[in-house]
Amino acid sequence: VNQFDTVSFLSDFGNKDEFVGVVKSVIRSIAPHVTTIDITHEIPRHDVRAGSLALVRSVQYLCPGVALAVVDPGVGSERRAVAVEVAANNERGYFVGPDNGLLASAVAMAGGASRAVVLDNEKFHLPAPGPTFAARDIFAPAAAQLCLGTDLSDLGTAVDTHTLLPGVLPIPQVSEEQISCEVLWVDHFGNAQLNVSAQEIAPLGIALVVRIGEQVRRAKVVNSYSELKGGELGVAVDSYGMAALVLDRMSAADTLALHESDAVVLEAAK
Amino acid sequence: VNQFDTVSFLSDFGNKDEFVGVVKSVIRSIAPHVTTIDITHEIPRHDVRAGSLALVRSVQYLCPGVALAVVDPGVGSERRAVAVEVAANNERGYFVGPDNGLLASAVAMAGGASRAVVLDNEKFHLPAPGPTFAARDIFAPAAAQLCLGTDLSDLGTAVDTHTLLPGVLPIPQVSEEQISCEVLWVDHFGNAQLNVSAQEIAPLGIALVVRIGEQVRRAKVVNSYSELKGGELGVAVDSYGMAALVLDRMSAADTLALHESDAVVLEAAK
Amino acid sequence: VNQFDTVSFLSDFGNKDEFVGVVKSVIRSIAPHVTTIDITHEIPRHDVRAGSLALVRSVQYLCPGVALAVVDPGVGSERRAVAVEVAANNERGYFVGPDNGLLASAVAMAGGASRAVVLDNEKFHLPAPGPTFAARDIFAPAAAQLCLGTDLSDLGTAVDTHTLLPGVLPIPQVSEEQISCEVLWVDHFGNAQLNVSAQEIAPLGIALVVRIGEQVRRAKVVNSYSELKGGELGVAVDSYGMAALVLDRMSAADTLALHESDAVVLEAAK
Repeated sequence: VNQFDTVSFLSDFGNKDEFVGVVKSVIRSIAPHVTTIDITHEIPRHDVRAGSLALVRSVQYLCPGVALAVVDPGVGSERRAVAVEVAANNERGYFVGPDNGLLASAVAMAGGASRAVVLDNEKFHLPAPGPTFAARDIFAPAAAQLCLGTDLSDLGTAVDTHTLLPGVLPIPQVSEEQISCEVLWVDHFGNAQLNVSAQEIAPLGIALVVRIGEQVRRAKVVNSYSELKGGELGVAVDSYGMAALVLDRMSAADTLALHESDAVVLEAAK
Repeated sequence: VNQFDTVSFLSDFGNKDEFVGVVKSVIRSIAPHVTTIDITHEIPRHDVRAGSLALVRSVQYLCPGVALAVVDPGVGSERRAVAVEVAANNERGYFVGPDNGLLASAVAMAGGASRAVVLDNEKFHLPAPGPTFAARDIFAPAAAQLCLGTDLSDLGTAVDTHTLLPGVLPIPQVSEEQISCEVLWVDHFGNAQLNVSAQEIAPLGIALVVRIGEQVRRAKVVNSYSELKGGELGVAVDSYGMAALVLDRMSAADTLALHESDAVVLEAAK
Repeated sequence: VNQFDTVSFLSDFGNKDEFVGVVKSVIRSIAPHVTTIDITHEIPRHDVRAGSLALVRSVQYLCPGVALAVVDPGVGSERRAVAVEVAANNERGYFVGPDNGLLASAVAMAGGASRAVVLDNEKFHLPAPGPTFAARDIFAPAAAQLCLGTDLSDLGTAVDTHTLLPGVLPIPQVSEEQISCEVLWVDHFGNAQLNVSAQEIAPLGIALVVRIGEQVRRAKVVNSYSELKGGELGVAVDSYGMAALVLDRMSAADTLALHESDAVVLEAAK
């Protein structure tokens, strides 16, 4: 009996080459009943942090099944290829990818790891002329097997889930006067998500001062972009419940020359 | 009984972030039998006109079911979120998106609106931490429900179809000597589609003068790119039946520095 | 009875326009049971060589069924639109696309052409307002029909498979001292695949000199990227069994200013 019919697939492979199509072909060849949903393949090359954050943002919306995530600068080296089981509310799910911190925060958000294996059972690998395409040769077959109902333990050697590499989510410093935080993510529209929750900004009021390096800007806390006049800087609670620097129909990141990981200080305006 | 098994999805979300993957995951979570076909997600940010034109070009080829289109600069503001029913040749279909003119021309081409609702029944919304991702929280669930066979009237308050915002398709000015028109669309290959039909250019003959700002160029009406010599400008009837400025294996838009909405005058050469 | 349920689709259409979505909609409208897997649509415009190589790299991983490949600078001209049957190990499959060399190497790798037709049976074409979108009007319907079980011979006039345009795969010049080769492909990560197999580089040893135009660089033969120190040039057997110029977590192509088709000479270091 087939266990799952969806693989959700995130990577830094880009859409220029045939990498994504080949991985999906491998999954479909092994498990023809499975639909693969592309989460995104435009994670910046080798950017484990960005991939991890995109996976965290997505995870609560994914279909039951297997999340296949590959941002893998250490491919072919000592880093472990793993499959991780999560179990929450009597439902199981799986994460498949490199053990480099990419999966950790999403695994935690999905209820935590109940079991994990290193994908070292070569019976389930594709024969590979070279070691650099683990997504095709190791990860995709493992994801497909889990959808077919193959038990996790058949895919490789069990590992203590406490040895999985943790993720690194930056923590803001919150005092009564100010919040020192950073840009988690700049989206396609130039909105700059901060590592600050809606609850954390509330005590600062609705008129803020924003410090970014040498720049000092006033900003208004708003519910929607349209409350902002042309060029006016806003802080909005975004669709993930996090504070974001925004402009109406313009890119906040371009206007402020902001990049992911940049430091930002928020203060109440006096 | 399921009513439809296809959602056709167009947006300006880009492929960099997880937006498209999350919307597709939400649809599949609610209506697992549905396949979502991506029309394109690279409509320029907030460009309702470009999104509307891409939808019009696609609509006659879409599978029966729901077209989900989201180019939504006013998200979170007063603009209405709507679902529109069309009925032609005894077949019904639905368009879901913002009521900002994006859907109007495609709805007209598909037979016109027979019913419409504002998507204000919160029973069918996802719980949202912020108001800025209506595609995930409001539009995708509505599209999925329509595929499941939920009646349009259950999704929200009926609205008079005559109050839906109209689309704006520019009309060329055609006289005996010349056609004043504009660039509707520059495609991936640099072909510049004009808002002029095959019928409208025919009386000008096959040797044309093309005026673009200060530029004056001769052009030849051709049936295929290969009738053009290197660098020679052509006017071809494109695959949508519209006149387009083209070169053989080169970008007409790059060569002529043409952009969407630019004014173009066509005349018979003397 | 349906014969196949997968179309694998490669093109140079890009993801900006609705071209890919419309082709997939046409396939699904004709053959609703079929899933289309996108191989890639970012082949450089009109680059038959690059498309051919991407198809060759993918072909052994594709699902049984139809491969639809469209890089078609001669669309609308005299070039033939074809469907080619391959038969290997008692399994049949089909390639559909222009007869311009794009399909040839993949067809050879899949066992060689057993039958071919020109797609001239207009009964299976979509009515087209213009001749420039053969993928939508001719190729997609043919691919869908083959999935439905329509016999190849119904799609058009049989052609001698020996008249199909051959592909051009460049051959390296191998002597005892050196290999004169070229860059087949620069991937998303900047790895530069050469037209040299693992067997061919082995006799040169593990310390190499690489000549690219005026540049002379030392390179080390490695099994994984992580054996390279920052900025050190490596030659690795890639996931297709070919030699590639690589760096660890950096782009070899950017570092060496390499492009596809550039000439490269490999020698044993003294």
